[in-house]
Amino acid sequence: MPTLVIANKCYSSWSLRPWLLMKQLGVTFDEITIPLDLPDTKAQVLKHSPAGKVPILIDGDVTVWESIAIMEYVGDAFGAPVWPDDRKARAMARSIAAEMHAGFSALRSACPMNLGKKFARKDRSEAVARDVARFSEIVRQSRERFGAGGLFLFGAFSAADAMYAPLVTRLDTYSIALDATTQAYVDAILSLPAFQEWRAAAMTEEWVVTADEIDEEAIENYRRAA
Amino acid sequence: MPTLVIANKCYSSWSLRPWLLMKQLGVTFDEITIPLDLPDTKAQVLKHSPAGKVPILIDGDVTVWESIAIMEYVGDAFGAPVWPDDRKARAMARSIAAEMHAGFSALRSACPMNLGKKFARKDRSEAVARDVARFSEIVRQSRERFGAGGLFLFGAFSAADAMYAPLVTRLDTYSIALDATTQAYVDAILSLPAFQEWRAAAMTEEWVVTADEIDEEAIENYRRAA
Repeated sequence: MPTLVIANKCYSSWSLRPWLLMKQLGVTFDEITIPLDLPDTKAQVLKHSPAGKVPILIDGDVTVWESIAIMEYVGDAFGAPVWPDDRKARAMARSIAAEMHAGFSALRSACPMNLGKKFARKDRSEAVARDVARFSEIVRQSRERFGAGGLFLFGAFSAADAMYAPLVTRLDTYSIALDATTQAYVDAILSLPAFQEWRAAAMTEEWVVTADEIDEEAIENYRRAA
Repeated sequence: MPTLVIANKCYSSWSLRPWLLMKQLGVTFDEITIPLDLPDTKAQVLKHSPAGKVPILIDGDVTVWESIAIMEYVGDAFGAPVWPDDRKARAMARSIAAEMHAGFSALRSACPMNLGKKFARKDRSEAVARDVARFSEIVRQSRERFGAGGLFLFGAFSAADAMYAPLVTRLDTYSIALDATTQAYVDAILSLPAFQEWRAAAMTEEWVVTADEIDEEAIENYRRAA
């Protein structure tokens, strides 16, 4: 069985992506958790991968790192339906997944993933608004063109949804206003059994990552620790 | 025939990646060039893709954006040998390609791709040195484990080489000191017929992107324009 090395479930957006995909597609795996921001975090991660970042998938003598590469490997090695069957849908799915991989920096830095809290709606920068608008456009276009068979971007759940899942949690955590199509999509992701399992595990964690805790106006605190 | 939408060959590191891969693998395509940093650049790009960034591949009614997604599409749709045949090599190739996609930010911002000039060696920040060391480690590991069949990271030229090609040009342009294995790899990329073709075309361009021109200590100027 492969092993997925991840960080804290409450905060580690990159870890969520391949974990959610594999769980949702029924690929079984063991987990190793390395908590973020502790004195030996880096050393622990480097034991598993010279790139020094989680997530890492270890499958026998194969080590794969970076979310997108892990997702491709899950399709390649285990035959899981990681991407849409249709070639056009698959091309768009990979495009938006890569766009996420190096994009949406304003939203990501203003609103760290933090599953333990909920914050009141407030005014955000224009750059954040542009990121939210671009995400809504992606949801609208994917759903209109390829979404007929289900609730997700390309109908059935795929790697594209897994790539955007952390962003979806930020929209919820920071109470960001959304159009109806985007809100319905956010609700579909947050209702996934695999996501619920991740969130429940996150709530049992005791680690607090101070840099990701924006305390002003927290209207809900789901964790005792934070 | 598909069309690849790119920006200036002298400066556009992202454009170089899929262009080089397709040329080197013999996939024929038409080109549209949209010069960077002109008043209507953004509007011209948005005509082709809602993500607003080059490169973009247009194949009939399919539009693909982001280098990595375009490269996957070239394998998927045209059957080109984009990734190594061996599954373990392929896993590592995709991991390092994704690592490039969102990484090496210190080297990328300190040393913009600029094929028109050569700069003297000088001291760089520790962050740049770490990026160079990581790249050398990637070259060493890839070549040791999978490079036996040729001069490139996984023997034959693959998408992993195409992803790192702009970084390779920076090492050359800014005269960065390298170990012998890394230097040999840099030389192999710079000697590729497809890269030579790209560079020759870059030298005929008249556009100058001021933000990417670091004028101090230029020891060679290959262009009349800049």
